[in-house]
Amino acid sequence: MPDKMEQVHAYYDYILPLILEAGKSMASAGKVDVEYKESKVWNLVTIYDKKIEKILIRKIKERYPDHKHIGEEETEKAKEMAKLTDAPTWIIDPIDGTANFTRKMPITCISVGLAVNKEQVLGIVYNPYLDELFTAFKGEGAYFNGKRIYTSGCTDIKKSVMNYEISVARRNEHYYNLYMYRFKHLIKIIQGFRSLGCVVLGLCYVACGRTDAYQCDGLYPWDAAAGTLIVREAGGYVTDSSGKEFDLMDPNFLATATKQLSDEYMAIERLADEEQINSAKENKSFVP
Amino acid sequence: MPDKMEQVHAYYDYILPLILEAGKSMASAGKVDVEYKESKVWNLVTIYDKKIEKILIRKIKERYPDHKHIGEEETEKAKEMAKLTDAPTWIIDPIDGTANFTRKMPITCISVGLAVNKEQVLGIVYNPYLDELFTAFKGEGAYFNGKRIYTSGCTDIKKSVMNYEISVARRNEHYYNLYMYRFKHLIKIIQGFRSLGCVVLGLCYVACGRTDAYQCDGLYPWDAAAGTLIVREAGGYVTDSSGKEFDLMDPNFLATATKQLSDEYMAIERLADEEQINSAKENKSFVP
Repeated sequence: MPDKMEQVHAYYDYILPLILEAGKSMASAGKVDVEYKESKVWNLVTIYDKKIEKILIRKIKERYPDHKHIGEEETEKAKEMAKLTDAPTWIIDPIDGTANFTRKMPITCISVGLAVNKEQVLGIVYNPYLDELFTAFKGEGAYFNGKRIYTSGCTDIKKSVMNYEISVARRNEHYYNLYMYRFKHLIKIIQGFRSLGCVVLGLCYVACGRTDAYQCDGLYPWDAAAGTLIVREAGGYVTDSSGKEFDLMDPNFLATATKQLSDEYMAIERLADEEQINSAKENKSFVP
Repeated sequence: MPDKMEQVHAYYDYILPLILEAGKSMASAGKVDVEYKESKVWNLVTIYDKKIEKILIRKIKERYPDHKHIGEEETEKAKEMAKLTDAPTWIIDPIDGTANFTRKMPITCISVGLAVNKEQVLGIVYNPYLDELFTAFKGEGAYFNGKRIYTSGCTDIKKSVMNYEISVARRNEHYYNLYMYRFKHLIKIIQGFRSLGCVVLGLCYVACGRTDAYQCDGLYPWDAAAGTLIVREAGGYVTDSSGKEFDLMDPNFLATATKQLSDEYMAIERLADEEQINSAKENKSFVP
């Protein structure tokens, strides 16, 4: 019997052509109709999201009937999150950055992660518009179009650029306050913010040094499964920005080029969160 | 004597190969050293910014000795802004999105605009990483890699994505408050925000429908000269977001897919600005 990582390589050889094929259908799409989940204008889905997830899961089932899967769209439909077991589990975001996809903004991707014994062992992220493929196997480094990549190595928060998905502040007052207090503290210090509208590529961009840090709270397993492994395998550091232990099934994350940079960010974010919690106790929102 | 726009086409034929050549040098750069203007970590310049501007201006002078030029780096050096006269004037940002450029984040460009009789007549924007060329001649439409482009046509603010360069809030308390009050009002309504770290491409992305709106205050002629013409020629609308008349030499801008969308944004921004001004009078900052 082949060792565990050899098996994972075999899975990769099977799934990669399917992902590239699905990417082609995205990149050649004409005008795309949009549906809004729960009538929320920021929660979009298209027929492409649904189709790509269906095809990938069907193909996985055909070849590996004992494997499990957790997909964004099937979870939406089931109204509850599947449990992560020890079985090989594919965690799929068929299209991350759907709002970008519908506008042909070339910052959107397919994300496929694999966990075995609850451990992230494989991450594949493909942006079909730019033909950019990010991959990582546990313990084997991260790659960008087949070339080994490393984070920027940044250790100075003052010279760091953070990707901060500030639109999440729209969800409700809790997130608004959380995001605004952190913003208030960070804006005085860091070089600049980016918001790209695509969580998974946000992580991959930390992995290849296009940014130094990525921060997003209130996320899902499919946002994290591939990208956080790619960051770690590129020498970066991922922690749960809320202070709790990182949990793939309930992730908030701060992903940074280095552990040192993470510590600098975390010190400031803890301060911001404390201020936010105290203000909430006094019923004070960040809204002036 | 050829008519005015024929002349402008001749200028374009001369300058375009120089811009593409300069772009090649950007895209093939290795690790790039960074200098900080006025010791501000967010105000970057590299040797590439300086070299590209120098070469373009030298070549323009060689061929068109009576033309004027306004460049970001020469203005920085001269410590004052040149006046815009009726002479053909080239307005150049050698690298917009320098922080992205130094990280090989492929959202960076060369921007060259031309004004004749103080009117914007030509805009050329080139992103060498993605080989994306945006161009517009006054009255002749906007083009993306040679193909005619149009804005998204969005007329519903609730379904719009705005590119908002929120890092500008870092400059000082005035900008912090201005940006935060607007953010507070807009976040409740629009679909989402992007911050791409490149003003000029932000405008081009409105022109080709990748976003629906772009908002940035406190800018310079070289941020506006090419991109605002490209937006207008793509059917979009550009106004001064502070409420004053749009001034190429002292621009703040709100660029939108349509005039109707502009009106919707302006109504909300005016409300936000009023609240901000009143709070400032009472010495209240947005900082809680």
